[in-house]
Amino acid sequence: MRCRIAGLLLAGALSGCANGPALRGTGDLGVVIERATGSVQVVEHSGRTSLGAVPGLGDLSHAHVTYSRDARYAFVFGRDGGLTKVDLLTQRIVKRVIQAGNSIGGSVSQDGRLVVAQNYQPGGIKAFDAETLELVSEVPAEYALGQFSKVVGLADVPGQKFAYALFEAGEIWVTDFSDPKHPKTERFPAGKQPYDGLVTPDGRYFMAGLFGEDGIALLDLWHPEKGVRKILDGYGRGEEKLPVYKMPHLRGWAMAGGFAFLPAVGRHEVLVVDTRTWTEAARVPVKGQPVFVMARPDGRQVWVNFAFPDNGWVQVIDTPTRQVVKTLAPGKAVLHMEFTPRGDEVWVSSRDDNRVTVYDTDSFAVRQTLPATAPSGIFFSHRAGRIGF
Amino acid sequence: MRCRIAGLLLAGALSGCANGPALRGTGDLGVVIERATGSVQVVEHSGRTSLGAVPGLGDLSHAHVTYSRDARYAFVFGRDGGLTKVDLLTQRIVKRVIQAGNSIGGSVSQDGRLVVAQNYQPGGIKAFDAETLELVSEVPAEYALGQFSKVVGLADVPGQKFAYALFEAGEIWVTDFSDPKHPKTERFPAGKQPYDGLVTPDGRYFMAGLFGEDGIALLDLWHPEKGVRKILDGYGRGEEKLPVYKMPHLRGWAMAGGFAFLPAVGRHEVLVVDTRTWTEAARVPVKGQPVFVMARPDGRQVWVNFAFPDNGWVQVIDTPTRQVVKTLAPGKAVLHMEFTPRGDEVWVSSRDDNRVTVYDTDSFAVRQTLPATAPSGIFFSHRAGRIGF
Repeated sequence: MRCRIAGLLLAGALSGCANGPALRGTGDLGVVIERATGSVQVVEHSGRTSLGAVPGLGDLSHAHVTYSRDARYAFVFGRDGGLTKVDLLTQRIVKRVIQAGNSIGGSVSQDGRLVVAQNYQPGGIKAFDAETLELVSEVPAEYALGQFSKVVGLADVPGQKFAYALFEAGEIWVTDFSDPKHPKTERFPAGKQPYDGLVTPDGRYFMAGLFGEDGIALLDLWHPEKGVRKILDGYGRGEEKLPVYKMPHLRGWAMAGGFAFLPAVGRHEVLVVDTRTWTEAARVPVKGQPVFVMARPDGRQVWVNFAFPDNGWVQVIDTPTRQVVKTLAPGKAVLHMEFTPRGDEVWVSSRDDNRVTVYDTDSFAVRQTLPATAPSGIFFSHRAGRIGF
Repeated sequence: MRCRIAGLLLAGALSGCANGPALRGTGDLGVVIERATGSVQVVEHSGRTSLGAVPGLGDLSHAHVTYSRDARYAFVFGRDGGLTKVDLLTQRIVKRVIQAGNSIGGSVSQDGRLVVAQNYQPGGIKAFDAETLELVSEVPAEYALGQFSKVVGLADVPGQKFAYALFEAGEIWVTDFSDPKHPKTERFPAGKQPYDGLVTPDGRYFMAGLFGEDGIALLDLWHPEKGVRKILDGYGRGEEKLPVYKMPHLRGWAMAGGFAFLPAVGRHEVLVVDTRTWTEAARVPVKGQPVFVMARPDGRQVWVNFAFPDNGWVQVIDTPTRQVVKTLAPGKAVLHMEFTPRGDEVWVSSRDDNRVTVYDTDSFAVRQTLPATAPSGIFFSHRAGRIGF
């Protein structure tokens, strides 16, 4: 019976005379987080349209989204510990579990079979079956007897591994899920209060920004025996204990032409780091405290948004000259940006103007604006095929 | 009427009680070229299975495949000048045109709206509407009055541009399709008989291997005003006029950790080139004349196959140590390899054993073998979101 109904819906969709999921590719799909309403909009970037909204996703402040291997399903991680599997084709919730008390994100394993959540409360990571969302195994972040740490900066890396940082423990852990029910974890001292982390696009270097001291902890996953190396002593302003809402999102670090562009902490600067030596190569003055610093997929441009009170601006840095070449005002409270897979356009969310603006990255012309309720994160499905998302 | 039939098929597919296309993601799909029968197999790499065969694609010797922006459609370029649009979901031909007398491939524009074919006879490139395959515009490779050149090494690059080389003209051309009906072309002297080319994954450097002289022509597309620079004078064996069937496929050049691994011409070596200086950094001895030299997506390994008589072997180079760490014998006449998007597995075609072998790239264990009729090229749909394919 359900089959018949589905069939009729599909027939209708194909004929364009009723609602319902038609056959379509999923390589140009994505979701926009609507944090105020706890819903996501499913969008497509070929025609720059919204395909529908999916409500009922809980607390989506600081939400993260990652994708199934086939790019059909979005895994939405909510601040309330909710993990929801959303079908982009039917725009329906397939499965939803509350897996922790407080979570800030997760990633999918290299083979696509595990979804791993990183949790604040209780601190640790949990691995779920990507098909069913059943719990497969977990690694509590117990760094000393009875002491649990918040987990930050989780990133999937090659070899069915995940790298992440422990805020209270001051450590970086690397867990191998090759045997899914029996994960093996290596621990590395990292420094005071790592507050976020990321892995380079090739999955080789895991970096954690330090909040309790200046500098960044760098672990070469090709040579873990060498342990964590401290780089950029001039980075950050740990001693001033900046409120976390002003801290940059390291997930946004941009690699372009052998250099990493990353947000200075507290300063109105983007730091340029030579990734062969991991030393500072330059600083680019910008309009405010950078939050996301993201490279266009070809690395020719780096786009930057800012913390309050400069969060209405977006600046574009030309990477060869390391100069700001464009300043844009997409709207109030710009929270996130997402490039199309080959970088022809970028989608920018303006929370307080309730819209998403799509820019041509070459001419900077506005190609489209889409209404959205307090939009924050934008995540396209090509992330399914990339390392470290 | 067609809509009703489709609907019934879809209903059947959903209920699993009849054949027909069900809703599914397209991020894990691909095609395997079956050159002997002029057909492709549609495959999926999550479960490592074949979904069906699509015949009627003409002469698929030296075929190339690229993908629509939504990763639903494969554009198959045949040696006979045929350009066929294949629907991966229905496993049917949507449209087929004979667009030239002799063609070796093509690419899709950055915005996904144009499919551009590179042709030997008549020499030039043609742009087609990706939706309808109607001709939009063309650029004949007329380098001197009445003299037309074969086009090789076509690559899509950012800004709606395509870079390619002209064999007889000894030039590299860059054509801008921002105004699709009125393409603008820049010409650059490149050297004697460029025989193939590629663009780096960031779309910045276009390189053409030279057949008529030693060396490689390098054009920095961020600084075209500097013109073409000749690199690797030690590269190639132009003076010996090697038969083209022994020439490596440059499309296989691998970038890993700031170094390019590329096949020496004629020699049993893989050359390692520092991409900051474009000078030779090392040579890795291998079992035969390399044809494809391909980096695993994380750059930790480079996989190499070989020209006859060594075409039954595949060797794996560990990039940090630049040593061959594994030698595999997948079967007779290994013609191509394709990595899964995040590199956990690689698919290898063995033409004369009529099979495709899927390896775990970490353990080198065989995960699956699939029967195929004289398989050659393997192309996965994540190419839709990458530059230069």
